[in-house]
Amino acid sequence: MKPGAKQALLDQVIEHIEQLDLRSHVIVGTECTVVAALGEKRDGAKQALETLEGVEKVVPILAPYKMASTEVKKEPTCVTVLGLSVGAGRLGIIAGPCSVESRDQILEIAHVVKDAGAAGLRGGAFKPRTSPYSFQGMKEKGLELLAEARKATGLAVVTEVMAKEHVELVAAYADVLQVGARNMQNYPLLEAVGESGLPVLLKRGPSATMDEFLLAAEHILKTGNSNVMLCERGIRTFEDHTRFTLPLATVPYLHQKTHLPVVVDPSHGTGKASLVAPMARAAVAAGADGLIVEIHPNPDKALSDGYQALTPAAFRQMMAECRKVAAAVGLEM
Amino acid sequence: MKPGAKQALLDQVIEHIEQLDLRSHVIVGTECTVVAALGEKRDGAKQALETLEGVEKVVPILAPYKMASTEVKKEPTCVTVLGLSVGAGRLGIIAGPCSVESRDQILEIAHVVKDAGAAGLRGGAFKPRTSPYSFQGMKEKGLELLAEARKATGLAVVTEVMAKEHVELVAAYADVLQVGARNMQNYPLLEAVGESGLPVLLKRGPSATMDEFLLAAEHILKTGNSNVMLCERGIRTFEDHTRFTLPLATVPYLHQKTHLPVVVDPSHGTGKASLVAPMARAAVAAGADGLIVEIHPNPDKALSDGYQALTPAAFRQMMAECRKVAAAVGLEM
Amino acid sequence: MKPGAKQALLDQVIEHIEQLDLRSHVIVGTECTVVAALGEKRDGAKQALETLEGVEKVVPILAPYKMASTEVKKEPTCVTVLGLSVGAGRLGIIAGPCSVESRDQILEIAHVVKDAGAAGLRGGAFKPRTSPYSFQGMKEKGLELLAEARKATGLAVVTEVMAKEHVELVAAYADVLQVGARNMQNYPLLEAVGESGLPVLLKRGPSATMDEFLLAAEHILKTGNSNVMLCERGIRTFEDHTRFTLPLATVPYLHQKTHLPVVVDPSHGTGKASLVAPMARAAVAAGADGLIVEIHPNPDKALSDGYQALTPAAFRQMMAECRKVAAAVGLEM
Amino acid sequence: MKPGAKQALLDQVIEHIEQLDLRSHVIVGTECTVVAALGEKRDGAKQALETLEGVEKVVPILAPYKMASTEVKKEPTCVTVLGLSVGAGRLGIIAGPCSVESRDQILEIAHVVKDAGAAGLRGGAFKPRTSPYSFQGMKEKGLELLAEARKATGLAVVTEVMAKEHVELVAAYADVLQVGARNMQNYPLLEAVGESGLPVLLKRGPSATMDEFLLAAEHILKTGNSNVMLCERGIRTFEDHTRFTLPLATVPYLHQKTHLPVVVDPSHGTGKASLVAPMARAAVAAGADGLIVEIHPNPDKALSDGYQALTPAAFRQMMAECRKVAAAVGLEM
Repeated sequence: MKPGAKQALLDQVIEHIEQLDLRSHVIVGTECTVVAALGEKRDGAKQALETLEGVEKVVPILAPYKMASTEVKKEPTCVTVLGLSVGAGRLGIIAGPCSVESRDQILEIAHVVKDAGAAGLRGGAFKPRTSPYSFQGMKEKGLELLAEARKATGLAVVTEVMAKEHVELVAAYADVLQVGARNMQNYPLLEAVGESGLPVLLKRGPSATMDEFLLAAEHILKTGNSNVMLCERGIRTFEDHTRFTLPLATVPYLHQKTHLPVVVDPSHGTGKASLVAPMARAAVAAGADGLIVEIHPNPDKALSDGYQALTPAAFRQMMAECRKVAAAVGLEM
Repeated sequence: MKPGAKQALLDQVIEHIEQLDLRSHVIVGTECTVVAALGEKRDGAKQALETLEGVEKVVPILAPYKMASTEVKKEPTCVTVLGLSVGAGRLGIIAGPCSVESRDQILEIAHVVKDAGAAGLRGGAFKPRTSPYSFQGMKEKGLELLAEARKATGLAVVTEVMAKEHVELVAAYADVLQVGARNMQNYPLLEAVGESGLPVLLKRGPSATMDEFLLAAEHILKTGNSNVMLCERGIRTFEDHTRFTLPLATVPYLHQKTHLPVVVDPSHGTGKASLVAPMARAAVAAGADGLIVEIHPNPDKALSDGYQALTPAAFRQMMAECRKVAAAVGLEM
Repeated sequence: MKPGAKQALLDQVIEHIEQLDLRSHVIVGTECTVVAALGEKRDGAKQALETLEGVEKVVPILAPYKMASTEVKKEPTCVTVLGLSVGAGRLGIIAGPCSVESRDQILEIAHVVKDAGAAGLRGGAFKPRTSPYSFQGMKEKGLELLAEARKATGLAVVTEVMAKEHVELVAAYADVLQVGARNMQNYPLLEAVGESGLPVLLKRGPSATMDEFLLAAEHILKTGNSNVMLCERGIRTFEDHTRFTLPLATVPYLHQKTHLPVVVDPSHGTGKASLVAPMARAAVAAGADGLIVEIHPNPDKALSDGYQALTPAAFRQMMAECRKVAAAVGLEM
Repeated sequence: MKPGAKQALLDQVIEHIEQLDLRSHVIVGTECTVVAALGEKRDGAKQALETLEGVEKVVPILAPYKMASTEVKKEPTCVTVLGLSVGAGRLGIIAGPCSVESRDQILEIAHVVKDAGAAGLRGGAFKPRTSPYSFQGMKEKGLELLAEARKATGLAVVTEVMAKEHVELVAAYADVLQVGARNMQNYPLLEAVGESGLPVLLKRGPSATMDEFLLAAEHILKTGNSNVMLCERGIRTFEDHTRFTLPLATVPYLHQKTHLPVVVDPSHGTGKASLVAPMARAAVAAGADGLIVEIHPNPDKALSDGYQALTPAAFRQMMAECRKVAAAVGLEM
C-alpha cells in the first residue's frame, strides 16, 4: 500500500484479493503496509490489484514457468538424436551454412563438419528474410539435400521451420526443428513443433527476457515434448560494433533456473567471423551445452550472412580450441 | 579499404564488385581509399565484400524498402474504412478493450467509444499470450460479438490475427486486421493478411529498427494491398518505470520516409493508465495519424492488461484533450 | 524464501533481520513463505539478505529518494530566475547555440531568442567533448560574452559547468548552472553546484533510470539548494535513426513522483533538426515545464552539433506551434 | 546525395567541402551520387555537411581515435606494476572487497588474494554512491589500510579516484588509479589521472560505445601516459536477471582495434555471486588480459555490493578453474 493509505482502501484491497479466491495477509510496517495475497496464481490478478486506489505496487513471488523449471525437475535434460548429444555434461556442436545453396555446397560442408568432429548439420531451407527482395531459401529441394548429407555423414540435421503449415514437411526430413528468433513468440508454431515430437532448438528473441524465453519453451513442453534446447543468439542493444550483443551470463543463469540444455550461437551473436572463435571458446568456458556455428566454403560468395561464416580451416581451428577449453571445464565434447 | 591496404587487395575488391555485375569506382584519399560499387542492390553483396581482405567496412547508400518509400509515392496515404480515416491530415481514433470478454462488455464499451467520437473499435478475440497458462481469448465467439458491436454502432472493427490459418476466419468479421508486435516478422502471416485485401494495422516489434519495420510493411505491400497502417507501440530498453519505452520521434521520422500513416498505441507503449492521456496528447502533437487506446468499464476486473486500460470517464477526458491538441496542430479529428 | 526452504533457514533470516535493527514479520503462503523486514532503510540490507541461504529474492518497498519526492512536498516547484519561470504551470523556453563561438554569433542569437519570446539563453563555454581532438569551447571568454548577451536582452544565461573547480568561475557569470548528461553521477560536481546556490539544470544520463536520476537530484537538494530542474535529453537504445531515443513518458511519470520541474531537450534527444519541432510540440503536450533547444544562425557552419540546430526561422516557427499546443493543454508560455 | 538531387545542390556541397579545406570527389551512380571529402578530419564537418540541402547522409571512414589504435602501435601493450602484469599474453588477476571497511577486513582479504595467486588488490576508499544516503567509503584512512596491505603482501593496490582534486592524494598510496564507469567521460579527471603518471584502469560507461570508450582512453594517452587498461564491466540493456549485461565480444573486438589490454569485471558485470566464476572463465577463454573480482570474507555483512562478492573459498575455486582455462587458451596466469 502507499504510505498513508487509509484503512478503507486497505479493506478494499483485502476484499478484492478474496474475490480472486486468494487469502490475504496484512503486515503493518513503520512507513507502509504490505498485503500478501496467497494461493494459486490468478491470471490478471497482479494487474487488477495494481489499479486499486492506495496500492503502491504488486510484486509477484513465483516463477511463471513450471515444466521448464528446476523446481519441477532437478536433473539436467540431455537431448540426443543420432550422434548429437546436448546437455548434462555433453557438449554438442552443430555447424553448417546459413542457407543450403546447392548439392555440392551442402555435401562439401557436411564432410567438413563431420571430419572436424561435430555431430549436427545446420542449413536453412526455408529462410525468414527481413527484406522481401532477399533469397528465401531452396525450400523442399533444400530439405532433400540436407537429408542426403545426413545419409552421407550420419550428422543430425537441424533446420528452421518458419510456419505452422510447413511443420509436417520439414519434420519429414529434419532431425531437429529450429524455431528462429523472429518466431520465438509465434505460439501456433511453438505448439505445432511441440506436437511433431521432434527435438526443438528454440532461439531467444532479440528482446526477450529470460522469463519470456522460458515461457516460450513452456508452450512447447506443454504439448508433451520435452526435447527442447534453448539457444542464446544475442540481443538488441545500443552496441553497434557487433550485429547483436551476446550475453553469455544467460548460460549459467539458465542452468540455475531450468533443466533444459543451453546452446550458444556465436555467429549471429556477433555477426563477425573474426569474433566467432573467441566467443565460441567463451561459451564453452561458461558451461554451454552446445554451439551452433555458421561455416561456408567461400564465405564471400554466400547467398546470405557470409560475413559471419567461418571458413572450413577457421572452423577446424575453432574446434581444436573449444576441445581444449571443454576439457578444462570438464565437458565431454 | 583499410589504411595501407595494398594494390593487390584493392584489385581483388574491384574484381569482386564486377563479378556481382556492379560497377566499381575508386577514390584515393589522404589516409585511405574508398571503392564505390554502383548498380542495383545485390543480395548479400555488402556481406560478401565485407569479408574480403583489406576491406575496412561496407556502407550501403539506398533505403532497402521501395514501395513504402516516399521516393516512390510522395503523397501521404489515407486508410479509410467505414467512418475511420487514418492519414493525410485525418486523425483516426481506435479504442476498446484488450480482450473481448462478454457480449455486455463489448457492447457497453462500443457505445462509450462511439459516443466519445472515436471511429474504430479494438478488441482481441485471438490473444497471443506470453504464458501458456493465460487467457487465450474468446476466438470466433469474440469475432461474432465484435461484428454485433459494429452493427450497433457503425464502428470499424480492428482485431488481431495471430496465425496465417486464421486469416480467412478473422477477415470474415473484421474491418482491419491487426498484426501484433510479436508477429512483425512472421512473413507467412504478413503475406496472408496482405492477400486478404483488408486494411492492415502493423505493430512495430519491440526491438525492430525503422528499416526492419518498413521492410515488414513491404512484405504486405508487395501483395498489392496498399492499405497499411504502421503502429508504434513502444520498444524494449533498460527503462523499468514503464512497460516499454514509447519513442514518439518515430512519428515525424516515418512521415519523412514513408507515405503510410502512423498510429500510436500509448496503452502498450507505457503500460500504465495514468500515463496514457499525456502520451496520447503528445502523439497527436507530434503529428500522429491515429491512436489506438485500451479502455475497460472496470479495468481492475479485466481478464488481461487491465492496469493500462482507461475507464470510460478517463477516455472521454483524453478525447477532449486530444481534440484541443489536434486543433492546435491542424489535424482533423 | 525459496519454495521448500527449511525452518532453520527461515530462522537464520529472521535473526539476520533483527541484527540489522529491523523488525521481522513472517507470512506463510501456499507455495512459499515471505518475511517482511520493517523499519528505516538500512544500507546494504537488501544485498546482505539476498545472499543468505534459502532466500529467493529481496524486494524493497519505498522510494530511495526523499527530498525530491512528492511524498515530502506535494506542490510543484517553480524555478524562477530573471524572466524565466519553469514549473507549476509555467512553460519556460531556453534556446541558443551549442557553443558560444563569437561575440557576433551569441548577440545575434540572443536577439533571435528574445524576439521569439523565450526567456533563457543557452550556450556552451566549457564543452565536454567525446574526442580530445574536438573544439573545447571559448571558456571564460565565452562566459563574458554570455553575460554581455544577458545585459543586451535580459535573458537568463544557462551554461554547463563540467568540473567542480570551475563552479565558482561559471557561477560568477551564469544564472543557471547546467550539469551535463556525462556528469549526472559526478557527485563532487553535484555537491559543488548545489552549494553555489544558483538554480541547476540537471540532465539525465543516457542510461540512467528514474531512481538514479532522482537520486542525483537528491545529491544537489541535500546541500539545501531546492532550485533543481530535471532535464530529459534522450537515452541510449538500439535505435539508430535518431541520435538518442527521447522517451517523453518521463514527463508525466516524474510529475507523479517529484515536485521538481521537468525540461525536455528535443535537440539532443533526436539529433536531427527536422525532428526537433514535432518533438518540442509533443513535449509541451505531455506537460513539460520547459524546453531547451539548440539554434544557430548558420547550422551548417556551427563548430559543434550543427546538424541538430534550428535556424532562426525554424525556431520562430517552432515557438508559434508550441504556443498553440501550450494553450491547448493549459500551460502558460 | 539524395536520389534526384539537382546539380545546384551538388555544387553547393562541393563548395562547402572545399571551404573546409578538404578535397571533393564526385561519383555518379545508378540511382544516386556520392561525394567523397578527402583530407584530415575536420571538427564538425560531418554535421555541417549533413544539414545541407540535398544531402542524404554523411559517412565517416576513419577511426576517431589515434594513439589507442593498432594502426599506430601494432604490438599489444603490457601494463606491469609490482607483480601485476596485464596484457601481451599475461593474465593479471585483481581481487578484493568493494569497499575497504576495516584494518582486519582488508588484511584478511589481501592474504586470501595473495595466497590464491592473484597479484592485484582492489578496494574502494572513495566510493561514488548512487544515493547520497549510502556509505561513502573510509577515504584517506582506507588508502592507508590499502598501503599497509600492500606492504604485508606485495600486491599492487588498485583503487578508484572519483574527483580530480583527489588524484594527488590517491596517487600517493595507490599503484593503479581506477576511473569508474560513472566517470568515463569526466574529462578533467581523465587528464588528471593521465598526468599522475600511474597506470590507469578505465572502466567502460554502461552506455558507452567502443568509439567513446577508446576516445576516453585517448584523453589519458594524450597526456603522455601510455599505461591504460580498458575494463569491460557490463552495459545497460533491457535484461533484468543480471545487474548489467556483460558483453564479452568486447575482448576480441578491442584486441583488433587497440593495443591496450582489456580487463573484465564479472562481479559488476553480472551482479550475482553465482554467475561470477562462469563469466570469469568465459572472459579468460575469450582472451581477456585481466580480471577484477570482488571478494569478501562475509559477503552478507558487506557494507556495499555484498550480493556480488565471492567468499574466499569460492574465489580460490574460481582461480583454479581460470588457471585451467588460461592454460587451454595459452595465457600465462
